[in-house]
Amino acid sequence: MKIAIVLGSDSDFPIIEKGLKHLNAFGVEYDLRVISAHRTPKIAENFSVNAEKNGFEVIIGVAGMAAHLSGVLAANTALPVIAVPVKSSSLEGLDALLSSVQMPPGVPVATVGINAGSNACLLAIQILSVKYPELRKKFCDYKKSMELAVIAKEKKLLEKLNK
Amino acid sequence: MKIAIVLGSDSDFPIIEKGLKHLNAFGVEYDLRVISAHRTPKIAENFSVNAEKNGFEVIIGVAGMAAHLSGVLAANTALPVIAVPVKSSSLEGLDALLSSVQMPPGVPVATVGINAGSNACLLAIQILSVKYPELRKKFCDYKKSMELAVIAKEKKLLEKLNK
Amino acid sequence: MKIAIVLGSDSDFPIIEKGLKHLNAFGVEYDLRVISAHRTPKIAENFSVNAEKNGFEVIIGVAGMAAHLSGVLAANTALPVIAVPVKSSSLEGLDALLSSVQMPPGVPVATVGINAGSNACLLAIQILSVKYPELRKKFCDYKKSMELAVIAKEKKLLEKLNK
Amino acid sequence: MKIAIVLGSDSDFPIIEKGLKHLNAFGVEYDLRVISAHRTPKIAENFSVNAEKNGFEVIIGVAGMAAHLSGVLAANTALPVIAVPVKSSSLEGLDALLSSVQMPPGVPVATVGINAGSNACLLAIQILSVKYPELRKKFCDYKKSMELAVIAKEKKLLEKLNK
Amino acid sequence: MKIAIVLGSDSDFPIIEKGLKHLNAFGVEYDLRVISAHRTPKIAENFSVNAEKNGFEVIIGVAGMAAHLSGVLAANTALPVIAVPVKSSSLEGLDALLSSVQMPPGVPVATVGINAGSNACLLAIQILSVKYPELRKKFCDYKKSMELAVIAKEKKLLEKLNK
Amino acid sequence: MKIAIVLGSDSDFPIIEKGLKHLNAFGVEYDLRVISAHRTPKIAENFSVNAEKNGFEVIIGVAGMAAHLSGVLAANTALPVIAVPVKSSSLEGLDALLSSVQMPPGVPVATVGINAGSNACLLAIQILSVKYPELRKKFCDYKKSMELAVIAKEKKLLEKLNK
Amino acid sequence: MKIAIVLGSDSDFPIIEKGLKHLNAFGVEYDLRVISAHRTPKIAENFSVNAEKNGFEVIIGVAGMAAHLSGVLAANTALPVIAVPVKSSSLEGLDALLSSVQMPPGVPVATVGINAGSNACLLAIQILSVKYPELRKKFCDYKKSMELAVIAKEKKLLEKLNK
Amino acid sequence: MKIAIVLGSDSDFPIIEKGLKHLNAFGVEYDLRVISAHRTPKIAENFSVNAEKNGFEVIIGVAGMAAHLSGVLAANTALPVIAVPVKSSSLEGLDALLSSVQMPPGVPVATVGINAGSNACLLAIQILSVKYPELRKKFCDYKKSMELAVIAKEKKLLEKLNK
Repeated sequence: MKIAIVLGSDSDFPIIEKGLKHLNAFGVEYDLRVISAHRTPKIAENFSVNAEKNGFEVIIGVAGMAAHLSGVLAANTALPVIAVPVKSSSLEGLDALLSSVQMPPGVPVATVGINAGSNACLLAIQILSVKYPELRKKFCDYKKSMELAVIAKEKKLLEKLNK
Repeated sequence: MKIAIVLGSDSDFPIIEKGLKHLNAFGVEYDLRVISAHRTPKIAENFSVNAEKNGFEVIIGVAGMAAHLSGVLAANTALPVIAVPVKSSSLEGLDALLSSVQMPPGVPVATVGINAGSNACLLAIQILSVKYPELRKKFCDYKKSMELAVIAKEKKLLEKLNK
Repeated sequence: MKIAIVLGSDSDFPIIEKGLKHLNAFGVEYDLRVISAHRTPKIAENFSVNAEKNGFEVIIGVAGMAAHLSGVLAANTALPVIAVPVKSSSLEGLDALLSSVQMPPGVPVATVGINAGSNACLLAIQILSVKYPELRKKFCDYKKSMELAVIAKEKKLLEKLNK
Repeated sequence: MKIAIVLGSDSDFPIIEKGLKHLNAFGVEYDLRVISAHRTPKIAENFSVNAEKNGFEVIIGVAGMAAHLSGVLAANTALPVIAVPVKSSSLEGLDALLSSVQMPPGVPVATVGINAGSNACLLAIQILSVKYPELRKKFCDYKKSMELAVIAKEKKLLEKLNK
Repeated sequence: MKIAIVLGSDSDFPIIEKGLKHLNAFGVEYDLRVISAHRTPKIAENFSVNAEKNGFEVIIGVAGMAAHLSGVLAANTALPVIAVPVKSSSLEGLDALLSSVQMPPGVPVATVGINAGSNACLLAIQILSVKYPELRKKFCDYKKSMELAVIAKEKKLLEKLNK
Repeated sequence: MKIAIVLGSDSDFPIIEKGLKHLNAFGVEYDLRVISAHRTPKIAENFSVNAEKNGFEVIIGVAGMAAHLSGVLAANTALPVIAVPVKSSSLEGLDALLSSVQMPPGVPVATVGINAGSNACLLAIQILSVKYPELRKKFCDYKKSMELAVIAKEKKLLEKLNK
Repeated sequence: MKIAIVLGSDSDFPIIEKGLKHLNAFGVEYDLRVISAHRTPKIAENFSVNAEKNGFEVIIGVAGMAAHLSGVLAANTALPVIAVPVKSSSLEGLDALLSSVQMPPGVPVATVGINAGSNACLLAIQILSVKYPELRKKFCDYKKSMELAVIAKEKKLLEKLNK
Repeated sequence: MKIAIVLGSDSDFPIIEKGLKHLNAFGVEYDLRVISAHRTPKIAENFSVNAEKNGFEVIIGVAGMAAHLSGVLAANTALPVIAVPVKSSSLEGLDALLSSVQMPPGVPVATVGINAGSNACLLAIQILSVKYPELRKKFCDYKKSMELAVIAKEKKLLEKLNK
């Protein structure tokens, strides 16, 4: 099982960094690419046209501003495409969010929150889990660990306050 | 292969109606439910806790305003959850969009555009296609048919204008 | 008289810190909890289902982004629920505000301003005052003290300027 | 037990109409007033200064645009004040929402959703329930009836679809 | 001199209709196309890659929602590309505006107002005027005629009022 | 000739500081007050009811968040009231802007830009100039000096670049 | 005493119509003009440069979209300029509001609410009242009449409800 | 071939600085001006009325807040005018964007992204390329160089990660 992560710019790397740890922890292979929908359109097209053939099962696009990247990828593949809208220096990420999520009928993009690269990887894992039962099991464990982490943090906060 | 479609209110049915035609055309079985995150929280919880066990592979939540439905479902299942934010009588759907997409780390929701019930079903099909190759093939055919439809509409518009 | 304050994350603690001082000053007992609507949904449900039985009279939920916490609590209790929308790293708190306030008919949430943890505690005190006359009296004193503080600040500013 | 409902304009009456039915059903007495924060400021002040003395336990303010009404009322009383922001002919209700909810420290207003007059009355009932146990019981019944209504609507929709 | 007008959907035709009259009046030849960035991506790419070779000197893209069309065209051509963001059924056109105008460094798109198909054609004429002096002269005449039209409308309004 | 400047909080002083220099330069007397619409409502009412009698000819209100101050002042006086919406820690000043400008029919507030305390004082001067011809003359001089300042800054920038 | 009302388009006339009745009732003379900042810039400049000389004491500009009209007028005159932002077919009037109110330092525009032509005329009257005491008196009467109108409407609504 | 760049304020210079490097690299001559639409309106008018006569072929306007500069320039010239909306201290640049792009019918302004001074210069080059084939060739080379830069950055990022 293998997914592709496409950054619209190398400067978007920190957005996805934590997500890569999730992929590693779940044992999901990934290819990381830097492809610009607008500056390298042919590479974007070739990548997405051949993504299925090249063994990818899910694609994540990470882009800011007029974030067309995920839409361009989705236009050229039948694979599920996840978009991470990136907040840039103005408009608080609203531009990237609307550019990512408001896709026309027929070409959906699964959009996660602004800068939510970590959640994009987890969503990719959930999608892969439809096929790979072992991932589903790990995801349930992950959910359990999150629950325990919240409980632990609560305990720690209360201890700190009660000192 | 079977998905669940959960409407936050029966009045949301028209939003998903066209999507159901897609599911039928692709041969994807679905259960349609009306469950309110806030008015029937226990049903929502029971539904999502048992969704995997009950054979669902993807869940679509359709809700407006402070659209918590998909988030509540995602909290209780490891299945991929798709959110359709619904435009209601104020704020142009922005409330439902932000309530759906801005999920916290660890619990992603795959959000599609405002009122995009049709795209939610197509995204569900794309996700199922990861597992079911026959759906992938049909989706490629569907993409081809969309392309032809655009070409036909272009032809028709130009003919009309040239008369 | 006792209220519950539920933080969606331990990192939300500074938002409510000043409010806790109000509660202490008014002699209102509180339990502070860290419960995530999405990461610990069962705890959230259990907490709210049993909140009345456990002696809480008002609940305050503090959460950011797609702030479902207060709505989830309100879904499971007849107690009045106050929401504090928290500003996070994008969208200036608009996401949390809309997610908190735009509740569907039948399940209201009393929303205060973005990051207004202090006001949430004061509102809880006002609500408790409906039952406890001694709190009402103290609240009137508090209002008077605010008035005097404004007058004192005016005096100080003018003195500083006139030097 | 008695609450006050203050409309900023007689044209706001339809916003609160359904809420009045709730109050009647719960047996909560109310006075309906039309008072403009800007056109009848002295009446607004007199009303709120004397609201407690006149037996009101909660106040609901209903106003659109630069909706100052609830804030003005809250400035002059220690009673809990609920705001219903009203959508007017531009800006989709965002102006009234922000004018209602973004109150300064010390003077909270419990804001419900845009045009949510019904929820404002239910919130008033929840607040009164802190003092009047019989209201709490009725509210639990109301929550149960909502649950049943959703279930009934689901059944009806599915029957209609399966015909 | 010839320009291309690309509609993202045949339903966008009314947006550009008045603009076509401008083009006819100025004697600017145009090709009207219906090409979807997402449903016919290869046609979009081929069109823009070959646009210069096919004699087009300016391209206008007309699209709504996540309006990627003009950006996709600009990615594949050195011709100036004008975007007309189209208002669709939610968000008042803000989605299309931000998706059109917030292009990344290196790939500008000349964006006009929401639904401003007429202005897009006039801008195309202004751009062509850089090369074709006869268009510049006509544009100055057009500006003069607008001035006279405003004066005439003022006169008519005042006459009507003074009756 | 005398105007009143009312700050909603002493922390708003820096917003108006530059404006005070304008008033001094134009020889317009002013009283600076710190009055909170919500924390000192009676002072606000008394102030505005008596403002005309006390010799004020224009009032400036400076406030953030749900900025009701100017509206409250305008409700109680026939004097022209100018509002300066102040940007606070969330929402980029949009809350204060809408709360200030969207006044109901009958009670206008002359709103200037967010944090535009300097412009509020200049507007007050323009209003006073209707009565006091010497101020009009000074304002024309001020406009001339602004023009010269822009020209000087242009010269300086170009010199710096050409070095 | 005479003011000027400048409409950016004859289609803006309904926005100001009720305001003209106010002006007539107060005995304030006015000239109504249709001048476009962008289509008749020289007329706009001439008008504003000569406005003072021509006996105008206040100018009202009424315009939608990128509403530059009031700013252009204010640039060329020392008279106080009032802006009425007009809601057009998209963006709910937010474009005109921001274009009107966010003026740079040195050139204020007194902005009223979206489509608030009536309030603009009342503000003009308040400004003139600084100079003309008889207007101030009438304005106080007008405020009193508004108060009575609210009281009458309240009475009427309550009678209707109590039938 | 020569273009004009007009800054609304000398403080806007950093916005256009990178764009000037593009102009130099492409061999496009430019005049840099600081002209305020509101503080030096006559200079703005004179500049734009004479811009064509003075040999300019494209004009770029750079301004923030109620960014009227480009609209004022476009009102007085038949040359194509490009607007760069500048983000200022509130509202994230939305005010300047809407003030720039939402021009009325007949007077288009080619708007680029917020703070996108670099793209404005590239768009000017694209417009000039309609007339000057050598610029077109250089622009194609520039597009190629951007493509190579993205590829190089991808390589560098991957090397860094694989270390």
